[in-house]
Amino acid sequence: EISMRDYHTSHRTIQLPGLINIAAFVPGLVTRDSEDLQRVTQASIAAGYSMIRIMPVSKDGSISDVKSLKVAQQNSKRGVYCDFNLSITATSDNANQISSVAGEVGSLFIPFNHLSDNISKVTQVEAHFDAWPKHKPIITDARTTDLASILLLASLHNRRIHVSAVTTKDDIKLITLGKQKGLKVTCDVCVYSLFLSQKDCPGCHFLPTPEDQEALWEHLPIIDVFSIGSLPYQLAHFLKKEADVTVGIADALPLLLTAVVDGRLTVDYVKTRLHDNPKEIFELHDQVGATVEIELDRAFAVPTEGVWSPFAGKVLKGVVQRVTFQDQVACLDGVFQPIPPKGADMSTYGALPTVNVSSPVVRSKPFPVS
Amino acid sequence: EISMRDYHTSHRTIQLPGLINIAAFVPGLVTRDSEDLQRVTQASIAAGYSMIRIMPVSKDGSISDVKSLKVAQQNSKRGVYCDFNLSITATSDNANQISSVAGEVGSLFIPFNHLSDNISKVTQVEAHFDAWPKHKPIITDARTTDLASILLLASLHNRRIHVSAVTTKDDIKLITLGKQKGLKVTCDVCVYSLFLSQKDCPGCHFLPTPEDQEALWEHLPIIDVFSIGSLPYQLAHFLKKEADVTVGIADALPLLLTAVVDGRLTVDYVKTRLHDNPKEIFELHDQVGATVEIELDRAFAVPTEGVWSPFAGKVLKGVVQRVTFQDQVACLDGVFQPIPPKGADMSTYGALPTVNVSSPVVRSKPFPVS
Ligand SMILES: [Zn+2]
Ligand SMILES: [Zn+2]
Ligand SMILES: [Zn+2]
Ligand SMILES: [Zn+2]
Ligand SMILES: [Zn+2]
Ligand SMILES: [Zn+2]
Ligand SMILES: [Zn+2]
Ligand SMILES: [Zn+2]
Repeated sequence: EISMRDYHTSHRTIQLPGLINIAAFVPGLVTRDSEDLQRVTQASIAAGYSMIRIMPVSKDGSISDVKSLKVAQQNSKRGVYCDFNLSITATSDNANQISSVAGEVGSLFIPFNHLSDNISKVTQVEAHFDAWPKHKPIITDARTTDLASILLLASLHNRRIHVSAVTTKDDIKLITLGKQKGLKVTCDVCVYSLFLSQKDCPGCHFLPTPEDQEALWEHLPIIDVFSIGSLPYQLAHFLKKEADVTVGIADALPLLLTAVVDGRLTVDYVKTRLHDNPKEIFELHDQVGATVEIELDRAFAVPTEGVWSPFAGKVLKGVVQRVTFQDQVACLDGVFQPIPPKGADMSTYGALPTVNVSSPVVRSKPFPVS
Repeated sequence: EISMRDYHTSHRTIQLPGLINIAAFVPGLVTRDSEDLQRVTQASIAAGYSMIRIMPVSKDGSISDVKSLKVAQQNSKRGVYCDFNLSITATSDNANQISSVAGEVGSLFIPFNHLSDNISKVTQVEAHFDAWPKHKPIITDARTTDLASILLLASLHNRRIHVSAVTTKDDIKLITLGKQKGLKVTCDVCVYSLFLSQKDCPGCHFLPTPEDQEALWEHLPIIDVFSIGSLPYQLAHFLKKEADVTVGIADALPLLLTAVVDGRLTVDYVKTRLHDNPKEIFELHDQVGATVEIELDRAFAVPTEGVWSPFAGKVLKGVVQRVTFQDQVACLDGVFQPIPPKGADMSTYGALPTVNVSSPVVRSKPFPVS
């Protein structure tokens, strides 16, 4: 799926399928009449993402019942610029209620590290494993012993589990052990975690330490997916910067492509982790006519104005030249094209188990590679 | 193995095989020239226990290397009154050293709730799972998320694990779940935890709450073993009583037998949990000629003098009338007989895997019953 062409003599151009951000943070997700979802989808398509999976936790609450789900669905109806799906958050006592809306969301998110409604007891998490439909993904942000607890439940119930935003050496090692022993566990790391550490930002506990970051790079084959996540927003907040709702979205791909140019990653690594694996793990729909063209080694300076970025002023490589969505050019040379918002809520896709979904051949691959 | 005879018209007498305390706490275990082991074995045989498994943690340190093991072995050489075995404690960094002495101890104890040397990282525990001989028991006092972590490791490594001194509703529920799902987990509850709660002793966090205690009784079929443990000693310390090294040993059996007389337990329940299951789970030797004769419904008041007991003055039922060890009467009507100490260090028993040890038929029984 990767093609190389030469527009200029000095630049390599690559074409990738439309990218997937499996963890898009939308601050005003459950805030009535918020336009954050529009803005996030617009920034996403401009950055090369044709599909985003929206985290069910936001600044002002989470999607954890029918009411909050309706607000998010309503917010999406004013038009979005790429496809998306919604998820629902597990709380201590909503296990039985939310299984009724399982068909309307893409996955269940079991939070341990968010501001409110964290789950503290193994028995509460267990209730979710029993109630949530067997074929639908479960995602968690559990760390350390919480991570061990939820991996135990996944092991005992013989279920798949995806661990989001892995940050530490211990956690990536535990996931590695799980994969080695046949546990159906997958994981993602936020792109920022690969390029920023607590050394760059002292006191910022949600970033990896330099030692953790080194471990993440060493375990690259274990990392199934690169995500954007809520980390950029958290970081802006922590540094008391104005946290635009689109913070971090434009940075992720150039950071990865700069690492490609530097020889620390390959294009194929990036493609599997921003398209192939997300699609497979979360059983996402095929996006015909969604492509990204990138000038791989063209340098640019991260803007110092507009949306705040911790990389402002830094020279990165990899410029998104053309993004197509449903075979229409959505963005050209960084300029958003005046097309109507054609993104769709794909939450119900794969709501019923299909042959492909339950295929053990696909599911048991520990490190899916394109 | 249970026989009933009538010595008097009004009392039921039962005979049980020599009992096993799988968690004997010896305060001066690793203190040079301590006589605590002698005293604990004497109190044990008088109370009906012909075999005790000595916890490798003590008041002044733990058995965690060759040196401390030698001190304990030396202390035992001045004569003990019942058979015993020693175990070794896992620390953060002794995984590779202690596998060399595995043949000299009965099991590996992985502590999470003792005063020092607790293990905090999953990777450290993992190192022990990799280094410790496959056929030898691993025991832990892990709780809540630590318990989940170690059960995960047991699950991933397909190993047996014994959880000692379970106290809470959540933990017994997690163990129940593990058993239901085929995990090779067994557990014990300290006898004191069945009869004392934080209601009796406010602020005593190592006792169950009344709700926890109710859950323990409800999950009785899940509890494989009743133990004495370090709980009586901890309790005496907490209440600022003089903690005799033998505290709690004499109380355990009458507490259980009083529950039998009250119809809350059966003799068979007690026998399986103080003899059959301990012997099977920890692969202990046969003790020919070790028996206990008990007058089941004879009442007595727990002494208010001598060794402190939280039950002092309380009327219990079940008097140990005669204890034989190696076919000799060791104790008669509560009077210790002047026989030489003939107990042996059985730590090396079962050091090599036998057919019986690896038998999946024996091992996979979730609730072993006599
Ligand atoms: Zn160019
Ligand atoms: Zn595709
Ligand atoms: Zn379940
Ligand atoms: Zn967050
Ligand atoms: Zn009598
Ligand atoms: Zn026996
Ligand atoms: Zn291992
Ligand atoms: Zn203790």
